[in-house]
Amino acid sequence: MVGTPGASWRMVAPLTAAQIGERELLARILQRLPPIPSSVLVGPGDDAAVLAPERNERLVVTADAVVENVHFSRAYSRPHDIGHRALAVNLSDLAAMGAVPRWATLSLILPGTVVVEDLEALVDGVAALAVQHHLAVIGGNISRTDGPLVVDITAGGSVPPRRWLTRSGARAGHDIWLSGTIGAAAAGWEMLDQGSGIGEQRAADACIARHRRPEPRVRLGIAISRARVAKAAMDLSDGLADALRQVAAASGVGVRIDADSLPIDPGAREWWTGRRVDPVSAALIGGDDYELLFAVPPKSGRALRAVARQVADPPLTKIGEFTKDHTELVLVRGAVAEELPDGYQHFSRR
Amino acid sequence: MVGTPGASWRMVAPLTAAQIGERELLARILQRLPPIPSSVLVGPGDDAAVLAPERNERLVVTADAVVENVHFSRAYSRPHDIGHRALAVNLSDLAAMGAVPRWATLSLILPGTVVVEDLEALVDGVAALAVQHHLAVIGGNISRTDGPLVVDITAGGSVPPRRWLTRSGARAGHDIWLSGTIGAAAAGWEMLDQGSGIGEQRAADACIARHRRPEPRVRLGIAISRARVAKAAMDLSDGLADALRQVAAASGVGVRIDADSLPIDPGAREWWTGRRVDPVSAALIGGDDYELLFAVPPKSGRALRAVARQVADPPLTKIGEFTKDHTELVLVRGAVAEELPDGYQHFSRR
Repeated sequence: MVGTPGASWRMVAPLTAAQIGERELLARILQRLPPIPSSVLVGPGDDAAVLAPERNERLVVTADAVVENVHFSRAYSRPHDIGHRALAVNLSDLAAMGAVPRWATLSLILPGTVVVEDLEALVDGVAALAVQHHLAVIGGNISRTDGPLVVDITAGGSVPPRRWLTRSGARAGHDIWLSGTIGAAAAGWEMLDQGSGIGEQRAADACIARHRRPEPRVRLGIAISRARVAKAAMDLSDGLADALRQVAAASGVGVRIDADSLPIDPGAREWWTGRRVDPVSAALIGGDDYELLFAVPPKSGRALRAVARQVADPPLTKIGEFTKDHTELVLVRGAVAEELPDGYQHFSRR
Repeated sequence: MVGTPGASWRMVAPLTAAQIGERELLARILQRLPPIPSSVLVGPGDDAAVLAPERNERLVVTADAVVENVHFSRAYSRPHDIGHRALAVNLSDLAAMGAVPRWATLSLILPGTVVVEDLEALVDGVAALAVQHHLAVIGGNISRTDGPLVVDITAGGSVPPRRWLTRSGARAGHDIWLSGTIGAAAAGWEMLDQGSGIGEQRAADACIARHRRPEPRVRLGIAISRARVAKAAMDLSDGLADALRQVAAASGVGVRIDADSLPIDPGAREWWTGRRVDPVSAALIGGDDYELLFAVPPKSGRALRAVARQVADPPLTKIGEFTKDHTELVLVRGAVAEELPDGYQHFSRR
């Protein structure tokens, strides 16, 4: 149809992963990773990476995947956010152990239809957070799939001998502390899923941002470990109620939480209140906050205040205490004590 | 219908992952992992694992995923095979670096419909190979998916300072050595896909077994590294032609391969010959052999024979040599020199 109007406009379809092939994809990904430090003796591109371990430090390793339509939706999150989130959830686990992030491997399970530019933006999201935390992406792999996009990361960190934090160190009488606020990420996902309609747009945007780009509490985790303030810690990936139950079970203690003390995000509270949902239960059950829960002996109050001054953001809140009776999992609302809600579980809930 | 015949028989549908929920699934998986050694200070079940690094050793890390309908089919492989394979492909990468396997993290991306018994058998497949190689499964995660099953493993190993093998150490004049045989895994997949019909059933079974349960060449990789026999190494995950091209490119050399010397599996040769497919090209392009390709200076022939005696299985074959001209990628058939075929690539091929 030469000469017809519009013939000089070429509609160029975006390149997909299937069109450029594995080798070219790999080359484009490698190009976007941050430069590797001298402690990485062999970086990405060989059969495996080689690292010089940190002198006299212990190695901390965690693995976590984010799966399309389960942990994120391509309709609700930009590719950069997805990359950020995939690394953030792993850094959050390292933070909960008190570890300094050192390296990560990146597994990309890709539908052939993924647009190459989007994939590059996803890798940029990983790379930007890696640079922020001085972490080297040392390797990984790409695989094709006929299903949803999966980003699976294994992250390594280091911690001095006997300085790591576990879930099992809480004792009766320890105060329960929580970083930041809860509920925002879960409310943000609901807002994206159901459309907004919330009164104040800025509050809604804040919730949505918390879902899209969780900030792992890396500095805080290192600080509470090094100052010997925390005796146990866990991150809130599956919600506060789940974390409380897990730490209590691992430590063999009970928990007693004060509902009034819970630092529920104001935008989330408004969202749930407007929908006649109890904000306390919703914030306790809702996942994806990536805050830190930790146990502090009352005598360490002064040391904790020093940590709070050092790590100005996020704020820290005392929400209750660990108790002697391991069957007691209690939420106190005013004068009424009720059982702590059950946590979020994959498979059986969503 | 009390009293009708058959009423005393209850048809019990097999339990699925979605039915028992994440926590119960995790408990069942943890139960099946091998006991952890004393060098693992915190094992599975916390936010991350903690390890005491090997004294004065370098840390080697690799990650590789197997994806349903891409790397395996649930119709062709038993769950135990899939678990075996998922770890084997990672051990093969460690072997290619000359590393001793130490630990692995296991990410399972599971359709809710997966039968729990099958999942347990899959984990048993991982665990059995882990025990065989004294490797600790230190952590991981399970995620739901509405797509295919994915098993993604990151494996860590150790190697003494300056003893690791890379793809870039080959020099002109080095002999090219190959372990075991090639072609069997690719032919085995075709047999499963197209139905057998091969003359000799035992030969077909051997090919199918190679596809289902690749044996990583861990002892050989360690031996050629420690004896300082090999100057470069790579495993054949994406086929011999791909490995030759990758090592040549990384080392800045050419390759010259003798077709007659290629140790093509007899069952695979028979399969392809019967289908009028050139066995040499098919075996060069076919992936999933997980043999080791390595570069040996001619003067190290005696040391190599010592290694071959020490590691009796698999046999080793000299298949050609690295040459000076990096543009030369040659396969010699009798008197005719042709270009080496291109390797297998995800996305663009299958």
